[in-house]
Amino acid sequence: MRDLSHDLGLLAINSATVKAWSLEQLVEGCARAGISAIAPWRDIVQAHGIDKAGKLIRDARLDVSCLCRGGMFPASDEAGRHAALDDNKRAVDEAVAIGARCLVLIAGGLPKGSKDLAGAHAQVRDGIAALLPHARAANMPLAIEPLHPMTAADRACVNTLAHANDLCDELGQGLGIALDVYHVWWDPDLPRQIARAGKRIITYHVCDWLVPTRDLVFDRGMPGDGVIDLRAIRAMVEATGYAGHCDVEIFSAQDWWKRDPAEVLQICVERHQSVV
Amino acid sequence: MRDLSHDLGLLAINSATVKAWSLEQLVEGCARAGISAIAPWRDIVQAHGIDKAGKLIRDARLDVSCLCRGGMFPASDEAGRHAALDDNKRAVDEAVAIGARCLVLIAGGLPKGSKDLAGAHAQVRDGIAALLPHARAANMPLAIEPLHPMTAADRACVNTLAHANDLCDELGQGLGIALDVYHVWWDPDLPRQIARAGKRIITYHVCDWLVPTRDLVFDRGMPGDGVIDLRAIRAMVEATGYAGHCDVEIFSAQDWWKRDPAEVLQICVERHQSVV
Repeated sequence: MRDLSHDLGLLAINSATVKAWSLEQLVEGCARAGISAIAPWRDIVQAHGIDKAGKLIRDARLDVSCLCRGGMFPASDEAGRHAALDDNKRAVDEAVAIGARCLVLIAGGLPKGSKDLAGAHAQVRDGIAALLPHARAANMPLAIEPLHPMTAADRACVNTLAHANDLCDELGQGLGIALDVYHVWWDPDLPRQIARAGKRIITYHVCDWLVPTRDLVFDRGMPGDGVIDLRAIRAMVEATGYAGHCDVEIFSAQDWWKRDPAEVLQICVERHQSVV
Repeated sequence: MRDLSHDLGLLAINSATVKAWSLEQLVEGCARAGISAIAPWRDIVQAHGIDKAGKLIRDARLDVSCLCRGGMFPASDEAGRHAALDDNKRAVDEAVAIGARCLVLIAGGLPKGSKDLAGAHAQVRDGIAALLPHARAANMPLAIEPLHPMTAADRACVNTLAHANDLCDELGQGLGIALDVYHVWWDPDLPRQIARAGKRIITYHVCDWLVPTRDLVFDRGMPGDGVIDLRAIRAMVEATGYAGHCDVEIFSAQDWWKRDPAEVLQICVERHQSVV
């Protein structure tokens, strides 16, 4: 029998799920709902002010499972790559300021006008390699998140857990993995790659794949409303020793973003206990 | 220098690209445009009558690069699986009747209400295994087509060339691969898996990945309008010894399906020569 009161302590709310809320509203809403962890995006942290955000979160005794997100490394020219690196260093510093357990990275896609996928892969590897010294010095783990292959062109050209594992093999200490079920559930190689990832999985995100899916980015489902076998994937992840949060991250322009965020939070709590 | 007149002989028009046309219109349209091969879907073949369709195509001296499509194996119960097998046997017979070089199979997705992806994979394998004796007896190659991972839930749970290669390894003679760039271009493992596939690739489909992509199924691009490095992938495929057609297959509810099919054909000819 799962210990539900303990299990609730493993729920984290990603700010993208309650997009209408500011950081302050997110912190207050989670406190009211008995939720002890959040995963904010940078926009609401920056809007609140980085240092003030850290104090707000510490005062509320909230865990920060991760900061979303850095990355987006490929660019058409050296100036673009340099700007991306600078922005990623700032993201590391923001993650430190709010006490995040890691900074999530998504790869970025093809530079505008490019069809050179292998070149983009190399830019991602080189970008993470260039960021790692700053992250290591700050003692802030980076978590590369494989995104669904349907995002390869314009958002992220690291699309499988195998590729993320390869990057960790190559780049070494300081780089881990953010695993989001939405992006990897379809992969027949998933059980093997989760076992291979082992302790590299440092943050775990959940939502669901809806049938039909009406948009490539903004039509994710609440856990339980789709076809992903969430319990099975969580069991595989926890078998690696992962004992961290389940971060509910739902992009949903037509459904959940239109509802009262407090109601959404309550449903996240229920679904976390019943299906995640 | 590419021999363009020879190369035009390698262009095949998939009936999905000129969806408004009947088989008769497709045959006449291709004859007018100097195109020597077609890849019809079953709907227009059946609408014309199977035997009449064979005669029409033979009389026009058209090559049939493949018949689209069989497959869709997983079902909730034994009756459903039996019905799928029966329908696939008819598809093999139709492919023979029109002189197709192969019958394309797509896997099918999760049965309604199921979250058992591994179970669906097993049903696909078992379904192809059950179909193979009929296909071998008819001397009709089957071509399993890996579909993009975004189709895993509801259309096809074989989503990588690696998975298709594994099925070929397991099921043996009579099963080959239909490779469509749209579904596999994102895969960092593609060069290795194309080399592994070798002579198994028996039909090759092209279109393009648009940025942005507005629909998971019906927003494919004309070759050259997207981000896929078509020449590079074709070179890898031809390096395996593949000397068959490039079948232009474009699902495009908002763009190409709204245009005059004869104009679409002309653009296919031009793009085949300039970018495929």
